Amino acid sequence: MAYKNYPMVSRVVFGRGSFNELTEILAPKRLSINAPFIFLVDDVFERNAWLTSRIPLAYNDNIIYISADEEPKTSQVDELVEHIILNNKERPSGIIGIGGGTLLDLAKAVSIMLTNDGETKNYQGWDLVKNKAVYHVGIPTISGTGAEVSRTTVLTGPEKKLGINSDYTPFDQVILDPELTKKVPKDQWFYTGMDCYIHCIESLNGTYLNAFSQSYGEKALELCKEIFLENSLSTEEKQDKLMMASWHGGMSIAYSQVGVAHAMSYGLSFLLGTKHGIGNCIVFDQLEEFYPEGVKLFKKMKSLHDIQLPQGICANLADDEIDIMIDVSLALKPLWENALGKNWSKIATREKLKSLYLKM
Amino acid sequence: MAYKNYPMVSRVVFGRGSFNELTEILAPKRLSINAPFIFLVDDVFERNAWLTSRIPLAYNDNIIYISADEEPKTSQVDELVEHIILNNKERPSGIIGIGGGTLLDLAKAVSIMLTNDGETKNYQGWDLVKNKAVYHVGIPTISGTGAEVSRTTVLTGPEKKLGINSDYTPFDQVILDPELTKKVPKDQWFYTGMDCYIHCIESLNGTYLNAFSQSYGEKALELCKEIFLENSLSTEEKQDKLMMASWHGGMSIAYSQVGVAHAMSYGLSFLLGTKHGIGNCIVFDQLEEFYPEGVKLFKKMKSLHDIQLPQGICANLADDEIDIMIDVSLALKPLWENALGKNWSKIATREKLKSLYLKM
Repeated sequence: MAYKNYPMVSRVVFGRGSFNELTEILAPKRLSINAPFIFLVDDVFERNAWLTSRIPLAYNDNIIYISADEEPKTSQVDELVEHIILNNKERPSGIIGIGGGTLLDLAKAVSIMLTNDGETKNYQGWDLVKNKAVYHVGIPTISGTGAEVSRTTVLTGPEKKLGINSDYTPFDQVILDPELTKKVPKDQWFYTGMDCYIHCIESLNGTYLNAFSQSYGEKALELCKEIFLENSLSTEEKQDKLMMASWHGGMSIAYSQVGVAHAMSYGLSFLLGTKHGIGNCIVFDQLEEFYPEGVKLFKKMKSLHDIQLPQGICANLADDEIDIMIDVSLALKPLWENALGKNWSKIATREKLKSLYLKM
Repeated sequence: MAYKNYPMVSRVVFGRGSFNELTEILAPKRLSINAPFIFLVDDVFERNAWLTSRIPLAYNDNIIYISADEEPKTSQVDELVEHIILNNKERPSGIIGIGGGTLLDLAKAVSIMLTNDGETKNYQGWDLVKNKAVYHVGIPTISGTGAEVSRTTVLTGPEKKLGINSDYTPFDQVILDPELTKKVPKDQWFYTGMDCYIHCIESLNGTYLNAFSQSYGEKALELCKEIFLENSLSTEEKQDKLMMASWHGGMSIAYSQVGVAHAMSYGLSFLLGTKHGIGNCIVFDQLEEFYPEGVKLFKKMKSLHDIQLPQGICANLADDEIDIMIDVSLALKPLWENALGKNWSKIATREKLKSLYLKM
């Protein structure tokens, strides 16, 4: 098809305290008493009764706490799937991801790999998934990545960092409860919020843009500016609006693509394990020539919120390490084509990427 | 649940010419050779080969042309359902609505009534539908109503004009092809576009508003202003953007509600058969006291596009006729509560409504 038939999240709840509705939402989805709900939860919530006491557990339902200190890996998905299969008599009734982009992407990937054979790394790419995933629910506890609404789950594999992009990837249910983001540390709030901001800049300045993606991207960008540049919102309004910015920013990618910042930050992430949010910021900070207005505003927001980005993270890398990052980055052809057009490879040369990486 | 678990359209295609993808989209949805696709098509497209030649017909698939000169009725839905059941061996594989709000609402209602017993009028209200509808596809050929994305199908019954609001109402598939709107006459374009504008004003000024609905409503309003007030867009850009405005305007109602204009225009429509778009305009023109800024801008757009609204349509009505309109209107409690708050009945008195109707 010339135009993508975009699969939307089937159900969405929005509201402060809407997390309480999880019990009622899951009840009709239980397939049997031997088919548990598995909750993948960011381990920052371990022993946080305010959240965990509201996770409904019955029969063999299970919480698995996972650290989001590292980006999600294909091997991690394989291990989780094996663990779940070995410990349950039946395929789960549902996988519920509670956390930021890492946990949401893990929940999406695990739900896919429970119904698709082989190793996770074989599904990195576009439309390689054959079977419908297990019912899966996304509950973001930090806003910006758009993982709650996107058609991908981005994983680091042995050879590449690349998403499982498929019609079966989007969540069947999303709960948007801005109250869950209240304890996010400031730096993390900024980096993840900037992931949304950078989505908008990359989408709105991309060659793939159409009126669908534009309308979502413009709204998300407007919300980001309201949150990060103006000083007129209450804390709660900021939480509410950033959650919607993330949602619209994610939808903006539906018909568009991300661009240079994402392509290069995947390289950092693959080689150095740099987390996605901060990695995007480190890269974007150096991209004036590609996104002059966007980078100018980014620097203003960075300064307003007194954010110090790490410096010189590539300074001591050997040439072959730089080459690995360049390989990972240049493999993301749709991102480069969206950013720079059909002749992108004449602009995004290995030398250009090397010189940019060396500034970071 | 305190917060609505909103059912979204499962799949959406956007793009000029995306109507061509209908064949490919429907093919995997055919249940058997005896289970046809039924296309409900606005009769303005009868003998319009540009559109009809692209409707894929196989086996017992069937086009039913329907006039949108009158608002859709519950009795009309009953007749269509009976006709479809009598003329086919099996339940249809799908119902495809091609047209404006009238055709889209008919397609939604027919798909529901094919799987739910009894008369359509019994389902007017909130969450009365018991069974999942037949697969249904919406293809708007005029933009503004938001019917392509909403959770309702508004019908005139023997006793009331009211929607079938249910989780089974939204389309399984929507095709947004702005090219299909190219022949809409100017007056109709304006009236239906203003339906979207009025959705936004009513949603954004309503007491039900939250950050979810606000973000959609603000974007739709911004697009309406760009289209109807500024003079900087090409014809194609206007078509593209109005289709997105309609979509976002429809989503804005998800967590919110419409308000005074819709409540009162339902009265006009019930008694006089006034079409929804123009009816909203006739009412909204008199609502300065409720929506001062919104009405001011509306009058400006009306003048810019040289639109003459009918005058005095209620001038010769008898008191008992006015009473019928007031009854229909005041029965729409959620609309009034959204517009005026919990104590709405102290403001929206029968006398107030009568005085407003008499101005129209």
